[in-house]
Amino acid sequence: MNNKNTYKISIISIGDELCIGQTVNTNASFIAEKMTKIGAEVLAHSVIRDEKKEITSEIERLSEVSDLIIMTGGLGPTPDDITKQVLSDYFSCELELNIELYEMLKARYFSRGFKQVSQSLKWQCTLPANCKLFPNQVGAAPAMMFEADEYKLISMPGVPTEMKSILENSVLSFVLDGMELLESDMIIYRSLITANITESLLAERIGDKYWLDYKITLAYLPSYQGVKLRIGTVSKGVKKGNLILDRAQNIIEEKISDFIVGDGDRNIAEIISEILTKSKQSLSVAESCTAGGLGAELTKEAGASGWFLGGIISYSNEVKMNLLGVKAGTLSSHGAVSENCAKEMALGVREKLSSDIGISITGIAGPGGGSDEKAVGTIWIGYSDKTRNFAKHFLFGSEREFNRKRSIGMALMVIYKQIKDL
Amino acid sequence: MNNKNTYKISIISIGDELCIGQTVNTNASFIAEKMTKIGAEVLAHSVIRDEKKEITSEIERLSEVSDLIIMTGGLGPTPDDITKQVLSDYFSCELELNIELYEMLKARYFSRGFKQVSQSLKWQCTLPANCKLFPNQVGAAPAMMFEADEYKLISMPGVPTEMKSILENSVLSFVLDGMELLESDMIIYRSLITANITESLLAERIGDKYWLDYKITLAYLPSYQGVKLRIGTVSKGVKKGNLILDRAQNIIEEKISDFIVGDGDRNIAEIISEILTKSKQSLSVAESCTAGGLGAELTKEAGASGWFLGGIISYSNEVKMNLLGVKAGTLSSHGAVSENCAKEMALGVREKLSSDIGISITGIAGPGGGSDEKAVGTIWIGYSDKTRNFAKHFLFGSEREFNRKRSIGMALMVIYKQIKDL
Repeated sequence: MNNKNTYKISIISIGDELCIGQTVNTNASFIAEKMTKIGAEVLAHSVIRDEKKEITSEIERLSEVSDLIIMTGGLGPTPDDITKQVLSDYFSCELELNIELYEMLKARYFSRGFKQVSQSLKWQCTLPANCKLFPNQVGAAPAMMFEADEYKLISMPGVPTEMKSILENSVLSFVLDGMELLESDMIIYRSLITANITESLLAERIGDKYWLDYKITLAYLPSYQGVKLRIGTVSKGVKKGNLILDRAQNIIEEKISDFIVGDGDRNIAEIISEILTKSKQSLSVAESCTAGGLGAELTKEAGASGWFLGGIISYSNEVKMNLLGVKAGTLSSHGAVSENCAKEMALGVREKLSSDIGISITGIAGPGGGSDEKAVGTIWIGYSDKTRNFAKHFLFGSEREFNRKRSIGMALMVIYKQIKDL
Repeated sequence: MNNKNTYKISIISIGDELCIGQTVNTNASFIAEKMTKIGAEVLAHSVIRDEKKEITSEIERLSEVSDLIIMTGGLGPTPDDITKQVLSDYFSCELELNIELYEMLKARYFSRGFKQVSQSLKWQCTLPANCKLFPNQVGAAPAMMFEADEYKLISMPGVPTEMKSILENSVLSFVLDGMELLESDMIIYRSLITANITESLLAERIGDKYWLDYKITLAYLPSYQGVKLRIGTVSKGVKKGNLILDRAQNIIEEKISDFIVGDGDRNIAEIISEILTKSKQSLSVAESCTAGGLGAELTKEAGASGWFLGGIISYSNEVKMNLLGVKAGTLSSHGAVSENCAKEMALGVREKLSSDIGISITGIAGPGGGSDEKAVGTIWIGYSDKTRNFAKHFLFGSEREFNRKRSIGMALMVIYKQIKDL
């Protein structure tokens, strides 16, 4: 999707720790998602080091194709942070102490109970003279906006909470204004969440011939929690675009109706939360190899306290027996990773916590613990409610992290399938 | 750190879903970390879309500065995956069906119980004729290696488990061979893990004058689990480099000894695991607002079953009372987010699970649930062992995800502080 009239954004993330892979670059995807949502076109991201030459050549390159460059990182107090100096050289402006900002930050620190401010605060308030500042309500360094003839550049701190706060409070509306000024086309997307079908089967069912004719792009995003289908188009204004997408969505929904879990950008945990809230059913979890990961996933978004009671992490066999009532005979004859144990765990947690639904996970996450009979990646997911008590078997791979994530994803699928008609 | 003689690598991640921010680019950091560990120099990462022009211009640009370009994505079976065609055009070679691979994959699918193979398998096995292949033991698409005069390019699938498997089984040794061939310098790093001190205080204590003289770079990486200090140098061979780093580490350790938790690339959860394994102490968790996240974090790496018994997720007040023995009076007079409740939760889980140590988290993760008395971000962490039972108060921010992560990080700190002398 490459449109002449869209508002084009590139993202540069600066930092040695990003470049050598010690930190995952979550900032760029966060910014890209927000910008895409308001209809801007994100061209590319790049990660570069805290090196003057690399920063300036990256600005030069990306400024030729972008209306706006959004930059993060290198604004901290330590000597490896050089972004501010590089930008003031690049845009030929002097650095000077911003006294207003300095007094404001001093007052903020004192009001929070600090007795003195750190030596580096004055340096943090020394800023390029002719740039526009966006306030930082979380940390010290404000964002800076530089204006060249053909493009603009915004430099933000790399600390995710500071970046997010500035983006949401200032940068988003700044970009919206810019888009209006350029009378740019908008890229709009919507998503359908599917479950229990693979990416290639989904693509086969939907086909691809029709969509090109109508300037609609389709993309399939497999994840631990099912495949997300993204439908996109470019149009003058949101209203016209939404009409195009409505039509596309109708056609697609007819073709894959059995597999659609929901629309929008919610994940399956949020959809479960909605159903359980509406139907006033409560749920509890019993987790062995995931050790609390399912509970954490179910409560990621606020609003779970209406239906999520809690659970029991039964990592050891003693906890399985003493707290969940798993029978000693089950463990000795079938083992902890077995259909019977998963069923008893789900039933046990439901009874112990008096919830309507109980769900359990027990498995061999690896890398050790496998045997000829039970390979690493063997997982049982148990389910219990007033009328049913069963367990399902899965065999994933050899990687611990992957096995735990897929187990959580699959447990969500099992829950969803049982409650979707509530 | 920009050295003439090092082996230089650039990473290109291809995919619309990455560019618009729907997927976080974890591949690039994984690759960069592995390459850095073996002494290669990672110059930059970039994220671009599934567009022919963008892919070729990115190869052109980065091939001028790199010995090796590592690329991921765009090798899947759906029509938006174009990397293979683009590369076969770019390196002027024909695509042809690799019958050997096709038969091998068919046999693999049949042995896994599939009755037939998908239509797209033949296309997945149609590959550029004159590239070297690295086998994919997880999925269908192998990695491809192209050789130009001045650089090499490796294209891998974007699915993380497939990429990781190919990287570890083939690409790493390929890169090591290339480094030897070029007789390149190596960049070596080591890390010190610190706790209970901020980035700027750490930097102040250590200073920066000395290090530049000895070609040592220092970098500070703040995280939810404390600041990691990275010490790096460039040298001919690992042995000489390690001598330089030994000396640097000694000097630094003297300056910040009270704050060092460990060295290496382990995180604090792994260090806790080591101490508890050695001292044969067991631990259990009681979690409210984190809902299992602490248990999941403590068991992220294998080997926790020796000391982690499990825990109770007490999201509702009923579970706090019925399973953890929190007193009704505590909840009515102090509330669930209080010193008393955190203490009773930690004691309760320790007694219920018969562990040596009990740790608890209760707090207001937000965004709702705050009051004038107790702001969103108020967290209590409780601790209990045979001789002690206390709780510590923290006040974080307004963001739910941030508050939950910091709570888990702080709980790990509390555990570490109590057990470090075991």
